[in-house]
Amino acid sequence: MSRFFSNKYSSLEAYTPGEQPKDMKYIKLNTNESPFPPSKRVIELALEEAKRLQLYSDPECTPLVAKGAELYGVKKSQILFTNGSDEILNFAFMAFCDKEHPIVFPDITYGFYTVFADLHGIPYEQIPLKDDFSIDYRDYLSINKNIVIANPNAPTGLALPLSQIEEIVKSNPNNVVIIDEAYVDFGAESAVSLVDKYDNLIVTQTFSKSRSLAGARLGFGIACEALIADMNTIKYSTNPYNVNRMTMMAGYGALCENDYYMSNCKEIAKNRDYTKKSLEALGFVVLDSRANFVFAKSNKISGEELYLKLKERGILIRHFTKERIKDFNRITIGTKEQMDALISAVNEILQ
Amino acid sequence: MSRFFSNKYSSLEAYTPGEQPKDMKYIKLNTNESPFPPSKRVIELALEEAKRLQLYSDPECTPLVAKGAELYGVKKSQILFTNGSDEILNFAFMAFCDKEHPIVFPDITYGFYTVFADLHGIPYEQIPLKDDFSIDYRDYLSINKNIVIANPNAPTGLALPLSQIEEIVKSNPNNVVIIDEAYVDFGAESAVSLVDKYDNLIVTQTFSKSRSLAGARLGFGIACEALIADMNTIKYSTNPYNVNRMTMMAGYGALCENDYYMSNCKEIAKNRDYTKKSLEALGFVVLDSRANFVFAKSNKISGEELYLKLKERGILIRHFTKERIKDFNRITIGTKEQMDALISAVNEILQ
Repeated sequence: MSRFFSNKYSSLEAYTPGEQPKDMKYIKLNTNESPFPPSKRVIELALEEAKRLQLYSDPECTPLVAKGAELYGVKKSQILFTNGSDEILNFAFMAFCDKEHPIVFPDITYGFYTVFADLHGIPYEQIPLKDDFSIDYRDYLSINKNIVIANPNAPTGLALPLSQIEEIVKSNPNNVVIIDEAYVDFGAESAVSLVDKYDNLIVTQTFSKSRSLAGARLGFGIACEALIADMNTIKYSTNPYNVNRMTMMAGYGALCENDYYMSNCKEIAKNRDYTKKSLEALGFVVLDSRANFVFAKSNKISGEELYLKLKERGILIRHFTKERIKDFNRITIGTKEQMDALISAVNEILQ
Repeated sequence: MSRFFSNKYSSLEAYTPGEQPKDMKYIKLNTNESPFPPSKRVIELALEEAKRLQLYSDPECTPLVAKGAELYGVKKSQILFTNGSDEILNFAFMAFCDKEHPIVFPDITYGFYTVFADLHGIPYEQIPLKDDFSIDYRDYLSINKNIVIANPNAPTGLALPLSQIEEIVKSNPNNVVIIDEAYVDFGAESAVSLVDKYDNLIVTQTFSKSRSLAGARLGFGIACEALIADMNTIKYSTNPYNVNRMTMMAGYGALCENDYYMSNCKEIAKNRDYTKKSLEALGFVVLDSRANFVFAKSNKISGEELYLKLKERGILIRHFTKERIKDFNRITIGTKEQMDALISAVNEILQ
């Protein structure tokens, strides 16, 4: 830390991304990426844009916004695209939370929420998951504070039904409720259908998981016009050209070829069920995930040891050191072949 | 504005990007883009990355950092790449300025500095340019406040010599001095050579102007290790994967083919001198720009009228409404053909 770093960050702990070791070729089941490449049209559109990179990108993301609004059934003024969904989450924290407007989220969830809150000096409260790692939606009813809930939640993969999400939104009419749907396409119910009914709801999604664009950085938020306008004010006050030309058109292509990506999601869901059953057959406890990963623990080996032994065998999974979940690991669902390699390696380790 | 927007932004005025009208094809001399396309290698490298967009980008930007450090003669730990140079400027404002550490900059300069300051609640002071629109470096000596200076300055194009920049940095040892060198490649002296000597200096640059990558969004900061580490903490607390795969490798390519880009800069400087002389011959006052634009006014026509009449003729330039500079326009330097079209249109308008 330099002698110039602002005191307000004295206790800030930055987010730690999943490791990307370069010493050998790994089967990467640690960052919830898609095993499927982007579609041909996405690559073609990105290439076309690469030829005119000397020109600024369109700060309004015109074609992408039009296509997104069409696909999600909202007005163009109700959708905002950002440099990954971390950026739309950051904008939402900045726009609607402050010292007088704290934010509440589960104790076990996406690790970035505490980082955003600390970064912007926003007070926050963490509500413990139940013993079975599910969210009790009743904990969030009429609490009169801003709320962010990942649905499905990470790293558990467990999802709340839409009816319970709606109860939370409805019972906190004077606070903003952010539903982070990074993993929704793999089998949970989206709250996008509620944005016209509730002026306090923001739904965020990402192209990093179901749309095979983690490396392009594209996310978005859907909400009523006024909430989107506020987040646009933050965007135009930090980085008006936040989405580059290539990513904008890659994202457009990924929406145009929706069928390809949704069929990939079905394949992932199938592989997830297969992985769950296979791990259970090896004695694992595996939560009932609706995401492109499973959260699993074995009684025969610690979470850390399994993670390390798989890494030795060229398979990366995500281990967390937090006390409550340190016996678990989060395992991304890849292709059938990748999951077979995982299961076979786990089997070998447990022998 | 929604009823949820934080009070702290009640007086925030977002930045207004240059217009991008879509009604017809314009000669774009309004956003300081390069008239030259990216090099072939840049396009090839971006395409290669487009094929593996399902994988997250490298948050450390390893190859780009290595190449940048080599080209600029600094350690890898002294350079940080961001999603455009607006992002590194935002990180610097966040990291080093706060209620107790205000920031000072000229009254006529890049319009984003006031926006960043307002966004983060940072007090700021604007020092008037001299009557000839130059910065008097003595105004910034020993002022004991953080400072940001665009060098060359925008929209004037005037540059301070390195010796005067050094005086400013040296005389404010307990404050951070940011030198925003967005336009430095077109003919000013860079302060990168000073970063090892002064632990309070941050130099920022962009790939948007001299490196033909405005649409890719890539900027960077160079400073001592500790300042870079602090800005990295902000990066990892907002958007660890801030630079996408395609842009990272496009930027790498643009550094590898440095000669192509520096030769383009020489061409622009030649066209700038030609444009200046031609406008002066038409009775314009044209400041002595070291950037890829000129700042010019005519006594025969108002700044606004000239802007509007050129737009009618399919040529976009940038007009500012601020009282002190409303008689001027900022005109981006493009190819010789584009400048001839401009001069001929201006001539016609003045007839």
